[in-house]
Amino acid sequence: MPTKAVVLLSGGLDSATALAMAQADGHEVFAMSFRYGQRHEIELEAAAAVARARKVAEHRVAEIDLGAFGGSALTDPDIDVPEVPSDGIPVTYVPARNTIFLAYALAWAEVLAADAIYVGVNAVDYSGYPDCRPEYIAAFERMANLATRRGIEGEPVTIEAPLIDWSKARIIRRGTELGVDYAQTVSCYQADRQGRACGVCDSCRLRAQGFADAGIADPTRYRTDA
Amino acid sequence: MPTKAVVLLSGGLDSATALAMAQADGHEVFAMSFRYGQRHEIELEAAAAVARARKVAEHRVAEIDLGAFGGSALTDPDIDVPEVPSDGIPVTYVPARNTIFLAYALAWAEVLAADAIYVGVNAVDYSGYPDCRPEYIAAFERMANLATRRGIEGEPVTIEAPLIDWSKARIIRRGTELGVDYAQTVSCYQADRQGRACGVCDSCRLRAQGFADAGIADPTRYRTDA
Repeated sequence: MPTKAVVLLSGGLDSATALAMAQADGHEVFAMSFRYGQRHEIELEAAAAVARARKVAEHRVAEIDLGAFGGSALTDPDIDVPEVPSDGIPVTYVPARNTIFLAYALAWAEVLAADAIYVGVNAVDYSGYPDCRPEYIAAFERMANLATRRGIEGEPVTIEAPLIDWSKARIIRRGTELGVDYAQTVSCYQADRQGRACGVCDSCRLRAQGFADAGIADPTRYRTDA
Repeated sequence: MPTKAVVLLSGGLDSATALAMAQADGHEVFAMSFRYGQRHEIELEAAAAVARARKVAEHRVAEIDLGAFGGSALTDPDIDVPEVPSDGIPVTYVPARNTIFLAYALAWAEVLAADAIYVGVNAVDYSGYPDCRPEYIAAFERMANLATRRGIEGEPVTIEAPLIDWSKARIIRRGTELGVDYAQTVSCYQADRQGRACGVCDSCRLRAQGFADAGIADPTRYRTDA
């Protein structure tokens, strides 16, 4: 019987690759995504498509209650939230986000008796994010094994962040080897309702450069495509 | 200007005491409670009453999405959930619960630039719970300060669990000194809609014994009261 792993699946390129790597490591995958903002719906559709294509055992979407700690503009349905607010904080910003995501994954892992949690964090793209560093992941893993009976009883859960120091090109090459269909994934910060990318935002450029560096044809659907 | 603290407030005796201690430590208190089950509504009303009486700066209630990791009986609104299920797991059981609660508190602390998070966990009452031990709290604090910019920049957030090794009597004595109105708090696992306690469950007995040991009159409202 394969061991179980919970995989945090955002609908982007990195987490789709992490999911494929969890399967390559021999795990039965339980994918978890989060709903916490408006623009996010496109990513959730991408996550669902990836989950189906990779034949995961189950895909769950957790609602994160931004109202518990967010500002009023994010949570008051009567206030119109601009796509790019004037202060530059994206509408989908979640404070302590990886800690909340991993806490939910830990809860599900406890219920499933899963051996591992995979997360596609990357310290190269997100060098300014404290919770994308190896020392953060190691500290979460240590905490997680003090938090649960499994950890105490000598069956620790591991937090796997296999992409943490990989370049985008290396991620794309590995995912392509594992059959990931990157056309299903959405990286663009302003993708349209069909999930088509703008091609000009930071995230689009980083992604396009990754395909170029990897020497792999870019399957991304752009708005400008015929 | 007082420093800010986020306090996890369940509506029970311990967290009400932890809240009063945060205030005694000089903090402006931001209280956080969680909604994740049916019976819990009574506790939430108790939490709101305590928050009002203690004049906290703000009280927020976060929705925890049990469907993300719970079993179907807990989350399917068409299935009638018995108050005490046959397998003995309470309907309000949340896996990795303190990790999820503290993750939300950490997110709010980040938004508020709070210096501390207070949690009323107690290793005496809950000796079997891994996430009520001092080593768990220390590991969460360490992780939290790797997760956020504040920690890296030398302004760490502390996780305060001041009751962790206290007896119930000591907790009650300290809270009474600080003016906590324990009549507002609910500990009973089967309190009625008015928040009145059964007086016979484990939680009720532990609480009543605490008042007896402290030599303080028990203000708990019992169903059997005239």
